Amino acid sequence: MNNGKINVTVWNEYWHEQSEERIRKVYPEGIHAAVAAALNEAGNFNVTTATLDMPEHGLTQEVLDNTDVLFWWGHCKHGDVSDEIVDRVQKRVIEGMGLICLHSAHFSKIFKRMMATDCSLKWREWAEKERVWVIEPGHPIAQGLGEYFEIEQCEMYGEHFDIPTPDKVVFISWYEGGEVFRSGVTYERGRGRIFYFSPGHESFPIYYNENVKKVLVNAANWAAPRTQLREHICPCVEPLEPIENKAK
Amino acid sequence: MNNGKINVTVWNEYWHEQSEERIRKVYPEGIHAAVAAALNEAGNFNVTTATLDMPEHGLTQEVLDNTDVLFWWGHCKHGDVSDEIVDRVQKRVIEGMGLICLHSAHFSKIFKRMMATDCSLKWREWAEKERVWVIEPGHPIAQGLGEYFEIEQCEMYGEHFDIPTPDKVVFISWYEGGEVFRSGVTYERGRGRIFYFSPGHESFPIYYNENVKKVLVNAANWAAPRTQLREHICPCVEPLEPIENKAK
Amino acid sequence: MNNGKINVTVWNEYWHEQSEERIRKVYPEGIHAAVAAALNEAGNFNVTTATLDMPEHGLTQEVLDNTDVLFWWGHCKHGDVSDEIVDRVQKRVIEGMGLICLHSAHFSKIFKRMMATDCSLKWREWAEKERVWVIEPGHPIAQGLGEYFEIEQCEMYGEHFDIPTPDKVVFISWYEGGEVFRSGVTYERGRGRIFYFSPGHESFPIYYNENVKKVLVNAANWAAPRTQLREHICPCVEPLEPIENKAK
Amino acid sequence: MNNGKINVTVWNEYWHEQSEERIRKVYPEGIHAAVAAALNEAGNFNVTTATLDMPEHGLTQEVLDNTDVLFWWGHCKHGDVSDEIVDRVQKRVIEGMGLICLHSAHFSKIFKRMMATDCSLKWREWAEKERVWVIEPGHPIAQGLGEYFEIEQCEMYGEHFDIPTPDKVVFISWYEGGEVFRSGVTYERGRGRIFYFSPGHESFPIYYNENVKKVLVNAANWAAPRTQLREHICPCVEPLEPIENKAK
Repeated sequence: MNNGKINVTVWNEYWHEQSEERIRKVYPEGIHAAVAAALNEAGNFNVTTATLDMPEHGLTQEVLDNTDVLFWWGHCKHGDVSDEIVDRVQKRVIEGMGLICLHSAHFSKIFKRMMATDCSLKWREWAEKERVWVIEPGHPIAQGLGEYFEIEQCEMYGEHFDIPTPDKVVFISWYEGGEVFRSGVTYERGRGRIFYFSPGHESFPIYYNENVKKVLVNAANWAAPRTQLREHICPCVEPLEPIENKAK
Repeated sequence: MNNGKINVTVWNEYWHEQSEERIRKVYPEGIHAAVAAALNEAGNFNVTTATLDMPEHGLTQEVLDNTDVLFWWGHCKHGDVSDEIVDRVQKRVIEGMGLICLHSAHFSKIFKRMMATDCSLKWREWAEKERVWVIEPGHPIAQGLGEYFEIEQCEMYGEHFDIPTPDKVVFISWYEGGEVFRSGVTYERGRGRIFYFSPGHESFPIYYNENVKKVLVNAANWAAPRTQLREHICPCVEPLEPIENKAK
Repeated sequence: MNNGKINVTVWNEYWHEQSEERIRKVYPEGIHAAVAAALNEAGNFNVTTATLDMPEHGLTQEVLDNTDVLFWWGHCKHGDVSDEIVDRVQKRVIEGMGLICLHSAHFSKIFKRMMATDCSLKWREWAEKERVWVIEPGHPIAQGLGEYFEIEQCEMYGEHFDIPTPDKVVFISWYEGGEVFRSGVTYERGRGRIFYFSPGHESFPIYYNENVKKVLVNAANWAAPRTQLREHICPCVEPLEPIENKAK
Repeated sequence: MNNGKINVTVWNEYWHEQSEERIRKVYPEGIHAAVAAALNEAGNFNVTTATLDMPEHGLTQEVLDNTDVLFWWGHCKHGDVSDEIVDRVQKRVIEGMGLICLHSAHFSKIFKRMMATDCSLKWREWAEKERVWVIEPGHPIAQGLGEYFEIEQCEMYGEHFDIPTPDKVVFISWYEGGEVFRSGVTYERGRGRIFYFSPGHESFPIYYNENVKKVLVNAANWAAPRTQLREHICPCVEPLEPIENKAK
């Protein structure tokens, strides 16, 4: 928190947008800039961005120590993220930092680390219609949405999605081509809250969709730390009751 | 499965028992041998053992491919387990192998990998009394036990235990010194079932306790794979409905 | 259990089939008979049936005491089921009897009782296609199924479905008309296991579908009691440690 | 909400305090008055009280419609609460009202209704020590507490407690006499949040304990509705995709 606002860092591998003209047309300043813009509209976040090619991928210890919620977008450069940075991010999540993984970040090192499963899914890029149904209408991440919202052209992500049973399945998507997908799921690990949200893609303007932007804002508010603690790890403790030490 | 029996591999770092006379007196052939003996009594397991100092820690791909349930005991040599073997074990769990982590294995690389949290806890070695209460009397792992069972002398493991919310808290322990602990907890990750059970220690004869032995047997039966599958990872799929490919 | 077989009772309000010719053509001997036939094919169940118009709706205490798993089908006669029988069924579920609620039983007294929520959903009877996706491929209820199965003509049941967060969402359905639904969900209440399965309808021959029949059989096997206990309710107990009674 | 404050109604059967001198000495104006006082100190609640002997037990439709969070304390008069009022309270919980059940309310009609299980437990009134351990240190209900807090003299409530698997086990209690108990557990049913908290008793001054008061305040803040909705029940809906009605 800074000036009463939640500190958000939006991370992007920032590759497609620099290497492919058709992608740059959709996200001229990068997907991170589009996500940051959506958050900035809400007015209660201090938003900064970080990308793969920055020193330490832009995620120094100092940056993370000052991050309440980290957004993650990656796709074809997952393997270039250093394990040391993944360790660092995981440690911060356990301490209380929120983590929002978007779309193809299902296969990022940090998401797979936090899930401990394969995170495999089906996919198809046919620009078909996706209808995102609200399954938990009372959940903070679903506030301000109707019963469903639509994405006119999407990359299909389909079940089976190999993730641990979520705490809450907030959204389930219907696809024109016949699949379904748990498209918004929540977890807690240590003190940190995690949200995975599948809509979004490099070649479709999904992060400009008003409902998607609402979800990004809601998710950042939901995942912001309630408490953060650096605990002493595995302390040896004295008894609280007057017992004898028989192990001496 | 082999001859209709469940294939169990019991892994032990096997250090205390070889390096300290007082530990060897409790487990002359190693903790793995005591756990294996408890399982062998049940009659429906093919039990083998593996230790840290074996090539590939005794956990070659072939061994794991033929293991239905893996027990894990480690304490002061967690750091000596190679990351490559941890990766291999994790992959097998996701495919369907059961994993039972015992006592100080709460801090093993494989348990921390599967939990993705700190797995920190409080501890005290005063040889105090532990009373293990059954919280899920209908759970397969609790079958044949009374409402609780006691361990006369234990190492205390106390909350807060930093683990993800378990699927089921099967046991909660009461300690003479004033603490409580979620001493038996279950998870599923991928196709694999995971059980953590805190009772057990190198210097107390806990793995000879009749109730503890029942839990080990029940846990192995519960964690044995129902199905195992090596899925194709992230397949690109054709639509199931007759839609047009607008992304061409 | 009887002769090593699981005792199943299939309950049906049995109204549509007697009052409407077009329904009778689909299920000439009643939906209960079709469900019973599917279970009988499996060979490991003793199957009996019970209907609304029998004395005590066919669910006497003796019948329930000898029932391991109860299937429930109702639709337009939910209100005619006596509260006393609902109390009795609930008590048996808590003791360990499995309960499988089918399709329009989402609004039965017993399902609403066990869920404690509204159990409201959207519906449409347009005979559209339903594709049932397997979300938990390792779950016993999904064994023997492919990645999905289809029902050519169904009544659509759509989200939002007002139920407590399930232990496991085994199936999610896709509908031609654009909705999704958590079509197979599990719970535990007391010692009893509960499964709700939405496919099935009085005017479509869904209970003859081979995949649906597999689900019915799997569900009965899964829900069969592992243990049953009639506990003493709220016992006053002596302390287990030598403490003084300061309340005297 | 009213004047930006959360509307809380504290319900009490108010029997012990009127009928027994020794209880009246502890809670001269009733347990509801003590709970209300603890909440009033927090400053962000409009607190009113209601008791069994009021018309409609003080829980008219109007009162409930204006209640964000309802506290419930009952013990020996559970049976005197009318089923109609229980139905009404359940309906409001499903719509979004928070429900906090205290101590012996584990056996109230409304708690048993929402749990759908027996809610049985062990008990002993020996005025022994209870140590309440925080199991979810990041949970809003645990804010401002240390790792544990103690209650010098309590009525013991012990496992097995027959409740559905909680969403979160926030507290686990240790007792001098040797038992453990899941003493703070959360649920969601419909839009409503439910918290059960076992500390508290008519003859011990537990609701004056500073830590217990913190929990009451935290619980009321946590359970306050995020959204409330009266949904149309089971609507028949038109398709969202252009499909043909084959059922005509």
